[in-house]
Amino acid sequence: MTNQRSAALQYAHENSDRFLEELKDFVAIPSISTDPERKADLQQAADWVAQQLRDTGIQNVKVMPTGGHPVVYGESLSAGETAPTVLIYGHYDVQPADPVDLWKSGPFEAEVRGDNLYGRGATDMKGQVLASIKAVEALARNGALPVNLKFLIEGEEEVGSPNLGKFIREHKELLACDVALNPDTGMIAPDKPTITYGLRGLAYFEVRVYGPDHDLHSGVFGGTVHNPAQALCELIAGMHDSNGHVTLPGFYDKVRDLEEEERAELSRLGVNEAVYLDQTGAPALWGEPEYAPIERTGARPTLEVNGFLSGFVGEGGKTVLPSKAMAKISMRLVPDQDPEDVHEQLLQYLADNASNAIRYEVDKMVGSPASISDRNSSYVKAMEDAMEAVWNSKPLFKREGGSVPVVGQFQEILGVESVNTGFALPDDNMHSPNEKLHLPTWYRGIDALINFFLNLEG
Amino acid sequence: MTNQRSAALQYAHENSDRFLEELKDFVAIPSISTDPERKADLQQAADWVAQQLRDTGIQNVKVMPTGGHPVVYGESLSAGETAPTVLIYGHYDVQPADPVDLWKSGPFEAEVRGDNLYGRGATDMKGQVLASIKAVEALARNGALPVNLKFLIEGEEEVGSPNLGKFIREHKELLACDVALNPDTGMIAPDKPTITYGLRGLAYFEVRVYGPDHDLHSGVFGGTVHNPAQALCELIAGMHDSNGHVTLPGFYDKVRDLEEEERAELSRLGVNEAVYLDQTGAPALWGEPEYAPIERTGARPTLEVNGFLSGFVGEGGKTVLPSKAMAKISMRLVPDQDPEDVHEQLLQYLADNASNAIRYEVDKMVGSPASISDRNSSYVKAMEDAMEAVWNSKPLFKREGGSVPVVGQFQEILGVESVNTGFALPDDNMHSPNEKLHLPTWYRGIDALINFFLNLEG
Repeated sequence: MTNQRSAALQYAHENSDRFLEELKDFVAIPSISTDPERKADLQQAADWVAQQLRDTGIQNVKVMPTGGHPVVYGESLSAGETAPTVLIYGHYDVQPADPVDLWKSGPFEAEVRGDNLYGRGATDMKGQVLASIKAVEALARNGALPVNLKFLIEGEEEVGSPNLGKFIREHKELLACDVALNPDTGMIAPDKPTITYGLRGLAYFEVRVYGPDHDLHSGVFGGTVHNPAQALCELIAGMHDSNGHVTLPGFYDKVRDLEEEERAELSRLGVNEAVYLDQTGAPALWGEPEYAPIERTGARPTLEVNGFLSGFVGEGGKTVLPSKAMAKISMRLVPDQDPEDVHEQLLQYLADNASNAIRYEVDKMVGSPASISDRNSSYVKAMEDAMEAVWNSKPLFKREGGSVPVVGQFQEILGVESVNTGFALPDDNMHSPNEKLHLPTWYRGIDALINFFLNLEG
Repeated sequence: MTNQRSAALQYAHENSDRFLEELKDFVAIPSISTDPERKADLQQAADWVAQQLRDTGIQNVKVMPTGGHPVVYGESLSAGETAPTVLIYGHYDVQPADPVDLWKSGPFEAEVRGDNLYGRGATDMKGQVLASIKAVEALARNGALPVNLKFLIEGEEEVGSPNLGKFIREHKELLACDVALNPDTGMIAPDKPTITYGLRGLAYFEVRVYGPDHDLHSGVFGGTVHNPAQALCELIAGMHDSNGHVTLPGFYDKVRDLEEEERAELSRLGVNEAVYLDQTGAPALWGEPEYAPIERTGARPTLEVNGFLSGFVGEGGKTVLPSKAMAKISMRLVPDQDPEDVHEQLLQYLADNASNAIRYEVDKMVGSPASISDRNSSYVKAMEDAMEAVWNSKPLFKREGGSVPVVGQFQEILGVESVNTGFALPDDNMHSPNEKLHLPTWYRGIDALINFFLNLEG
């Protein structure tokens, strides 16, 4: 065992330059899933991943069709029935590169400058996908794989994974496993390995308010009908109290309290008010005063207006009294909130507060529950130890504000928890121009994953 | 005198078919002032009006350039210095015809069906302009004109008369008069001649709220910054109390109380809640409960959201936390509110209520005061008698919710009141497809104007 560990680590270090060259090839494929003209590039990226898996000795590798871009699957079950089976999740698609003129080198040139590899998808998440494969390669070249492995690498994460739920459901047997590894979350600093144990869920709605049956002249009718834009503003304004709490009836009923130990752990992350002010550029912070910003984004549910449209919004003025108004409103959910409950709470709030001078409609667009993993599970412990061995520092535990629906889907459909980690850094410009991957952190990540798989062997 | 009256009325009746043919020619010119490609049509309409004036025997007729479409001017000063001088206002431009496919006959075909002439501008206000000219023609063909006359027919009313204020200021001497006649307001029913003695003013603003300095991920930052869309909703929601009163500090301070006599007069109009429900199609009416709808639209100031835009408003969902939000907000003003005061009141309201976690900007776009005319002036009396003689019914006195800035400009720059009337009906589809002019009402209108000019002679 120790033999395989040191041999695998040594192999990874000796082959680091080749690993980087391979990553550059991967990043150079413009697999932008939002762009319908990139279909062939998506296919190419899927084939590239499949070939990597085959070269690594993974069995039964297939590029499987979905309603959209294909899923790459592969497995290695040679560790036997007593060894755990880890399902490794990843995605080979990337965000668009716009605005391209803000990039210092071409988004698909995969240029190394200093300690970083620059390119769209370098950190989100081609680097993370390849780190997993390279860790497996290093182990496979230096002994038998210590665990059974399955790979599920999709091509539609950046467009909201519209076909993934169906795929998982239809291939439940194929994907059966004991735990999932999701390296699509990041670290909070290069010297601070991080495990994300909580992810927020999402409930997303479009609310439309209707008043008069046609646009009116504001001079002729203003003051006699409930202006739908105003009515929707009133409804939205009432969704928070003056302390930033959400007022939907029952919204907090199932919210799991933050334990003192968790709060202490979160405060150790050092992401204080100054960091939030700097990262947002807002004139001041806002929100529930009894929680720190890091708690508000990760451990507390929130409600945001994502968009609002009504009436005349062009240049100049038009004295229209609009006949309708629309808002996109979404809630980030925490355990144990149920997206269905939140839908009902929104409907109840509207029924309680809407005036009889308007009508309204609500479309439910997305509903995914929050997920939280057991921080004391053997899988999380395996990752904790793996990271500590590499960084000489205990990893931090983080709850993340975003939603990673696949984590919830694995919980719901496959009945397994995910170990959420990754080697992306906050300044990696994810989704922005000049996306980059910090290479020293990436190499440490490969080492950590080698350790992780070995630690799982027990 | 009596001789000229009966002769002029008889002349008008005998020439009614020719008057209609001339109006059809006028309506057939697509003088859409909002459409930059219609510049030649606007010029043609101006020339057409100028020729009509010349044919009527009006002197000094000129098509005068402005920064936009020209103004047609003409005068007849033969009644001498002791006779009053009436400035007749009108506009030869029309609204766009969209959506064209909803018209039963082409918008510029000027088709007569039943008692109505259909065409864009038939009632707003080519019919009204020509009624004034034809009344003058009927008088001029049957004696000397009883009053001095000046015509000011502009071509930019439907785009907010951007060059008219400057024109009036620069031609103050030329336009000097004792009273203005503005036939651009209408009647409330074919059997109810109407004089509009009050018009609301307008103050129009764009309010922009800024929060974070870039769009944020709602999962990563939601709950820590004051969402600008939400903040603007909160500010807008607070601009009315639960009874529909505007809460801007001092908003009602200068509002002239409605006198009991006026309220009785307004209620005589018969425009009750059922009429407003029918005309708006709203599920229920809304507004200040202590005032009837007709009082709310005409005699009370109001505040409306004319437009609102923030964040993602396309199909589907995007979990953006927008960096800014914009609303168009306008107030209809009544005597003696000052648009400048209202600007200050809005700024004060925002200063008092905006959170320190956002920034905001306010652009003032339009500011025109309300106007109210002396219902007992000799000019109004002359119109009252003129209408009663034609309809055998005392005209109703109305305050209108809309704003006719030229009335305020005549007051401010020329120091004269306007007699506001006209022969448009509520179902004339002004600004909508199938605009029409009710011909029996139009002919009565010409008769009434003949009487009006003769009554002014004293």
